[in-house]
Amino acid sequence: MKKMWSGRFSGESSRLLEEFNASIGFDKNLYREDIAGSKAHAKMLGACGILKQNEAEAIIKGLDGVLAEIESGKFEFKIEDEDIHMSVEKRLSEIIGKELGGRLHTARSRNDQVALDFRLFVLRSGKEIMAELRAFIATLANIAKSHKDTLMPGFTHLQHAQPVSLAYHLMAYAFMFRRDFERFASSVERNNLSPLGSAALAGTPHKIDRDMTARELGFKGATQNAMDSVSDRDFALEILFNISVLMTHASRLCEELILWSSQEFGFVTISDTYSTGSSIMPQKKNPDVAELIRGKTGRVNGNLIALLTVMKGLPLAYNKDMQEDKEGVFDSVHTALTSVHILNEMLKEAKFNEQNMLKVTKKGHLSATDLADYLVREKNVPFRTAHFITGKAVAYAENLGVDLSELTGEQLASIDESLSADAVKFLDLNASKEARSSKGGTANASVQVQIDEIESWLKF
Amino acid sequence: MKKMWSGRFSGESSRLLEEFNASIGFDKNLYREDIAGSKAHAKMLGACGILKQNEAEAIIKGLDGVLAEIESGKFEFKIEDEDIHMSVEKRLSEIIGKELGGRLHTARSRNDQVALDFRLFVLRSGKEIMAELRAFIATLANIAKSHKDTLMPGFTHLQHAQPVSLAYHLMAYAFMFRRDFERFASSVERNNLSPLGSAALAGTPHKIDRDMTARELGFKGATQNAMDSVSDRDFALEILFNISVLMTHASRLCEELILWSSQEFGFVTISDTYSTGSSIMPQKKNPDVAELIRGKTGRVNGNLIALLTVMKGLPLAYNKDMQEDKEGVFDSVHTALTSVHILNEMLKEAKFNEQNMLKVTKKGHLSATDLADYLVREKNVPFRTAHFITGKAVAYAENLGVDLSELTGEQLASIDESLSADAVKFLDLNASKEARSSKGGTANASVQVQIDEIESWLKF
Amino acid sequence: MKKMWSGRFSGESSRLLEEFNASIGFDKNLYREDIAGSKAHAKMLGACGILKQNEAEAIIKGLDGVLAEIESGKFEFKIEDEDIHMSVEKRLSEIIGKELGGRLHTARSRNDQVALDFRLFVLRSGKEIMAELRAFIATLANIAKSHKDTLMPGFTHLQHAQPVSLAYHLMAYAFMFRRDFERFASSVERNNLSPLGSAALAGTPHKIDRDMTARELGFKGATQNAMDSVSDRDFALEILFNISVLMTHASRLCEELILWSSQEFGFVTISDTYSTGSSIMPQKKNPDVAELIRGKTGRVNGNLIALLTVMKGLPLAYNKDMQEDKEGVFDSVHTALTSVHILNEMLKEAKFNEQNMLKVTKKGHLSATDLADYLVREKNVPFRTAHFITGKAVAYAENLGVDLSELTGEQLASIDESLSADAVKFLDLNASKEARSSKGGTANASVQVQIDEIESWLKF
Amino acid sequence: MKKMWSGRFSGESSRLLEEFNASIGFDKNLYREDIAGSKAHAKMLGACGILKQNEAEAIIKGLDGVLAEIESGKFEFKIEDEDIHMSVEKRLSEIIGKELGGRLHTARSRNDQVALDFRLFVLRSGKEIMAELRAFIATLANIAKSHKDTLMPGFTHLQHAQPVSLAYHLMAYAFMFRRDFERFASSVERNNLSPLGSAALAGTPHKIDRDMTARELGFKGATQNAMDSVSDRDFALEILFNISVLMTHASRLCEELILWSSQEFGFVTISDTYSTGSSIMPQKKNPDVAELIRGKTGRVNGNLIALLTVMKGLPLAYNKDMQEDKEGVFDSVHTALTSVHILNEMLKEAKFNEQNMLKVTKKGHLSATDLADYLVREKNVPFRTAHFITGKAVAYAENLGVDLSELTGEQLASIDESLSADAVKFLDLNASKEARSSKGGTANASVQVQIDEIESWLKF
Repeated sequence: MKKMWSGRFSGESSRLLEEFNASIGFDKNLYREDIAGSKAHAKMLGACGILKQNEAEAIIKGLDGVLAEIESGKFEFKIEDEDIHMSVEKRLSEIIGKELGGRLHTARSRNDQVALDFRLFVLRSGKEIMAELRAFIATLANIAKSHKDTLMPGFTHLQHAQPVSLAYHLMAYAFMFRRDFERFASSVERNNLSPLGSAALAGTPHKIDRDMTARELGFKGATQNAMDSVSDRDFALEILFNISVLMTHASRLCEELILWSSQEFGFVTISDTYSTGSSIMPQKKNPDVAELIRGKTGRVNGNLIALLTVMKGLPLAYNKDMQEDKEGVFDSVHTALTSVHILNEMLKEAKFNEQNMLKVTKKGHLSATDLADYLVREKNVPFRTAHFITGKAVAYAENLGVDLSELTGEQLASIDESLSADAVKFLDLNASKEARSSKGGTANASVQVQIDEIESWLKF
Repeated sequence: MKKMWSGRFSGESSRLLEEFNASIGFDKNLYREDIAGSKAHAKMLGACGILKQNEAEAIIKGLDGVLAEIESGKFEFKIEDEDIHMSVEKRLSEIIGKELGGRLHTARSRNDQVALDFRLFVLRSGKEIMAELRAFIATLANIAKSHKDTLMPGFTHLQHAQPVSLAYHLMAYAFMFRRDFERFASSVERNNLSPLGSAALAGTPHKIDRDMTARELGFKGATQNAMDSVSDRDFALEILFNISVLMTHASRLCEELILWSSQEFGFVTISDTYSTGSSIMPQKKNPDVAELIRGKTGRVNGNLIALLTVMKGLPLAYNKDMQEDKEGVFDSVHTALTSVHILNEMLKEAKFNEQNMLKVTKKGHLSATDLADYLVREKNVPFRTAHFITGKAVAYAENLGVDLSELTGEQLASIDESLSADAVKFLDLNASKEARSSKGGTANASVQVQIDEIESWLKF
Repeated sequence: MKKMWSGRFSGESSRLLEEFNASIGFDKNLYREDIAGSKAHAKMLGACGILKQNEAEAIIKGLDGVLAEIESGKFEFKIEDEDIHMSVEKRLSEIIGKELGGRLHTARSRNDQVALDFRLFVLRSGKEIMAELRAFIATLANIAKSHKDTLMPGFTHLQHAQPVSLAYHLMAYAFMFRRDFERFASSVERNNLSPLGSAALAGTPHKIDRDMTARELGFKGATQNAMDSVSDRDFALEILFNISVLMTHASRLCEELILWSSQEFGFVTISDTYSTGSSIMPQKKNPDVAELIRGKTGRVNGNLIALLTVMKGLPLAYNKDMQEDKEGVFDSVHTALTSVHILNEMLKEAKFNEQNMLKVTKKGHLSATDLADYLVREKNVPFRTAHFITGKAVAYAENLGVDLSELTGEQLASIDESLSADAVKFLDLNASKEARSSKGGTANASVQVQIDEIESWLKF
Repeated sequence: MKKMWSGRFSGESSRLLEEFNASIGFDKNLYREDIAGSKAHAKMLGACGILKQNEAEAIIKGLDGVLAEIESGKFEFKIEDEDIHMSVEKRLSEIIGKELGGRLHTARSRNDQVALDFRLFVLRSGKEIMAELRAFIATLANIAKSHKDTLMPGFTHLQHAQPVSLAYHLMAYAFMFRRDFERFASSVERNNLSPLGSAALAGTPHKIDRDMTARELGFKGATQNAMDSVSDRDFALEILFNISVLMTHASRLCEELILWSSQEFGFVTISDTYSTGSSIMPQKKNPDVAELIRGKTGRVNGNLIALLTVMKGLPLAYNKDMQEDKEGVFDSVHTALTSVHILNEMLKEAKFNEQNMLKVTKKGHLSATDLADYLVREKNVPFRTAHFITGKAVAYAENLGVDLSELTGEQLASIDESLSADAVKFLDLNASKEARSSKGGTANASVQVQIDEIESWLKF
């Protein structure tokens, strides 16, 4: 079969080339975008008098037919049709005739077609991920609401540091994922411009209306330099990066869920619905979902570095290397959507073991900082000195084999002359949590402010 | 020497640990941010009555003294002081006394200090890069203004495609770098929140005013969850990514400058000031600057992947792994600033060889698309058929060993019945360029719109 | 349907989990390795008396039946069977009965099964890539043989440096790809150890013979610590890295083919069979294959960084994150095999344009180093001084608008007192090439040594 | 100041270029290699009669003088001397005179000089890392020797799986790090070839003896194609990759040390010498070293991807981009050396808390697989059925709130008809460990074989 571009070619393509070169195996995913773009283009060609009105209408009707065939599964994608653009146009020509079908490609090129299709996909995907994020943030806030009094150790260096509430800990993630949401939103906004009508690289001599196709396709406007437009993949890099950061956040939460569901921690029980067993060890119950999400962070980072590597040093304008832009983006988008979705479902069903959390909060002298802060506030001791005295109190408790929060007033007073028995009340773990009422702190009142902030954001 | 945190430690640190652990070797770069943060903190502690007013003032004065010492080069940074925070505080205590110096650390932690310092650095760096970008974009527009009539081949697949102007080609980069500018601006805006007062991870029992320190330091507000605030490095990931995309754009321009300054292309002559020679081949003149910038894209991508890898799977809140966040950012920021700056200077002095460009534009049948478009427009031939006929015309010219633009009307008319002799006027290369007057096209009028757009943006 | 591991589970898996968790979508590629491993395992269980001989034989026969079903396309892979191991075992049990089929999993676990299957795949793939490399190196040497006298400019910094032969340039790649071959060979050798019988992580109480299964499967021995064996993915990282370096080399060659087939260079013509055209510009002929291979370097680098990221910080032994190891390896292996293969075919048909190469060799004063070397050798001038004098000669020629090789003896002698007219003979470009007869040099004799070295290596 | 290569340049370098271009800031690290290379080169030039014998000797003596100056700290490195090669040669010329100094550069180029220096550094670094690895593996085997009876839970998915010994777990790392050793050894062997004498890219007309310089410098031979030799950085990529895998292994061990030193696990106590405290929480003791090493895995992966990115698509031969090869390698080598060293020292002083490990081994029904294996072995139940029955036993124990190993014979027998009271002896945790005596298993005898294997390897 003759290729559409084969006018001056004397030799035939090798089958080897055909297979190596074809993108139809993956860019068929763009069929909706491709057909929407072609319809808008045809409509505009009609409006501008480049096609007759009835020609434009026939083309649009034909394209709807192709769409219906694809969506019903009747369409057969073939390697020899190279890509989604050629596949659609070829079928269109079969339906409405070669003469009319051949008019659609007026005033455009595959270079701007692929830039358009891919950009439309990336914008749509960004919005879909935003929707998943919003649902997940709502879940986090929801769980937080009923765990403001659930005491747990706050960790730094994976060592017990200060008592916090589970609500507070979960709200940290709510704010992380909200930043992710904002990054996607910002990228959607920045890249919301239509490249259609850029043609191959230099614009077209036909009197087209690029603003019209932009409007038709829901863009806020058209791009301003065609050579840039056909060689720009910033929008793809942005979504890959945004997904990498999102999955990095997810991997941190998953790391904690894995730790917390270990026999040693015992903070959380993942439901059977979202766990799996072992082929050999009948007692096992594994947090596979959390592990997989953590692992998939590698894959999305790989996709990011892959496209950055592809784009580096490419001269203008379009180069075939850029065909490598799509598979990684499809993969990262799919990974992000499914990961956030299943994480959300899993968390909804997770059972937090409050007793285990409480028990372990009493290990590690978590109110030590409170003692130091007491010395500063009540006894006017410089913080550095207070830190040192508290260190002695910790060593004293450790020698007795008890937690700092279990010392008596008398014991406390015996450690250093700055300490008096009344300091005991600052060592209570719940009091410690409630004392941290500064903006962004773990006290219930502060956490409620955070929940309110997120919930009012969610309403918007 | 005793560490400030050594209250409960019985053993001594090994020197090995000290060297491995210390960040002072690189975080000393943050001295300005660290001291500014401490001053704001002391002022706030005074305003809130946590320090006496005269204490706060003495501390601030002392901090100014430390700053002066550092800026005059008199300050000695020591491994055993671990990091910039400890170094500054220790020196402060030597100047104003241990008792008073020890009060500064009230209601904060190194965890929020480092989050603050690093964030301030990243925000400042983002703005500095924006300034360099703005200057460079102005240069591009400036050169473009005098090259609207400089004809050159537009390339796709590094093959001659259609005639464009040098102005148009350069403006593609102006729009790329403007997107970079916008990404930095967006990140600065999104991350412009103060983490100071988050303390270790849970807030503080002291009655502090985080909004006041935020204002003092020029932030638009304070962060909302302290645990997130001390473990968030999104702002660092963002600047690393923004720099990676910026350097990717720069690498594309540099690739072209390298190609263009080859003997084969001969499109541009880099000035002696920005070229180097060979130690062995006396005739060589090498485009080292462009090559180095292209190469440095690897380094900034490496820095990005490094921090993404560090952050993956880290449980909350602060972990020491996060100390690995700074060197890569310092390196990428420095790379971006110097690369854009020298690229700007180099381009100002570059000499474009218009005659060579013109000569080569006549190779490759660059007006072939114009012939196809003529058939569509004037002869109502479907584009696909027009493409095929033009292919034959190209083959005809190639057989004669001439460029398509050199065929006569008679020759043209002999190729296919749809072609008549009047088609010849569309084969003129300058006419071809001027025909592409669609929005974003290469025609002078379209390019002028692009230049105007950039220049009015620059004024703002 | 009940999962095989569901003994203690009260809840059901969600369909969401099933889809997220299943690896059957990609690990079905391992069916040959999985069945071979199971057959060797069954045979060993029989030989060790853990299964009765007739049981072992029935299982092996059953497994051959499963293999035949898969290879004939009759086998249906289902999401709910999770992975290739479960799919094969389930079908086996349908064929030979649940009781007998259930005995196969004695003394092994999915953890060592997947380690085995994947390792077998990686070893086989390494050898397949080695075969493609060998064929390609033969092509390079073959082309080199007929181009020892084809003069071309040798480049550094993409600037003309010294005259070389095309043969010499191509032989540089032969040595690069031979190093690749050696890296794959070294990895195959190092990782040629069987993990089968490691069971879940700690070995098995059954009296198995791991050396026997190792032998059966063609390994040189068995691994030595089971916990390491089930959590080791070094072999996968190695092949990913080896492929990244291979593709880096390929990308360099492809960059040159792209440059060389540009209108500006004109050094090579890619055959129509391995080129494509443009949908809009009828005159275009694009080096798509070379561009795609260059681009695919990004993808394989991404796969490498992805698995490095997955493995970082994973505690022992198996974690589900490691399921992310396969898709990237499958993709990189496929990319390497097809890229080397098509590069080989494309190069066999490429036409080198000797006249264009020769013409351009006369640009850039390529024999300048020869003049400097003459001064050193014949006139006893220190090299640094010689370099400086030659620089003057180059400037002199450039002022005249001629190449250094075109100066007359008189002109030369007038430039500096150290230069005499006889120096002219060293400026001849072919003489320059032939003078470089040191080991590894571009003179024909040296190049022939290189070709001989490669050809005798190929015979081995 | 005039550059050595400035013969034909009319303009001056800008200071901006000088700073951007210079590599002296980091390649001064190569001074030993550079001087050794120059000495070997001078000696060879003397032996081949290209220099007079006394000239060669004077140059060598002068180079020794430069070396002494550098090592005593008297040498001043200057930006305007560009790189280590120019710096050394310039100082040499000051010492022995410009005329004689200027003769050293005969028959070589900076391109082969830098290839030589860097390769020598990489080979030496590989050997240094191998020595650190060997010492560390000895420590692991040493600790293992006294912990064969230390029972601990073996984990998969961070869930308790089967009982293992600490010795066994540590030996898994010994084998990992031995593979690292072997990879470095393999790379050293493969790349042990001298590029010196390749000159700029095409060899040299001087009658040099490259095998002699290779021997002098300790190489096993000389490279075979000069164009490849000056543009090959495979050796650098290899050491970067080997370090990435090594650090990945280290990060896994560090992750475990961090987990194990948490309050929840309590398996290990890091000595005060290798821990740090908190600036605000006096009770904290943080495993900073392990965290830092885990974090530094990001950095070395970044360095690997950086150089892969730099090398991608570079045309032959040398390009300035390649100057970006060194800093990352220096950084990764330093990271690997210090990380393995401090990990070794830290582990020597770590205290394993055997009681805590033992206690927790009784959680999670770790002998469940033993019960299944008993059913297979003693009762001839197919493994899949045995797995299912054991699942029921686990559920039974869990309902009683006890570990499977705590069930009585009667209780066991009541669960399923296949189970009889004698099965109880297989539930003992130590018996479970000792049962796994297959090759590579956790039984003491198997572990001793592993230790013997490593210790005999260490002796070699």
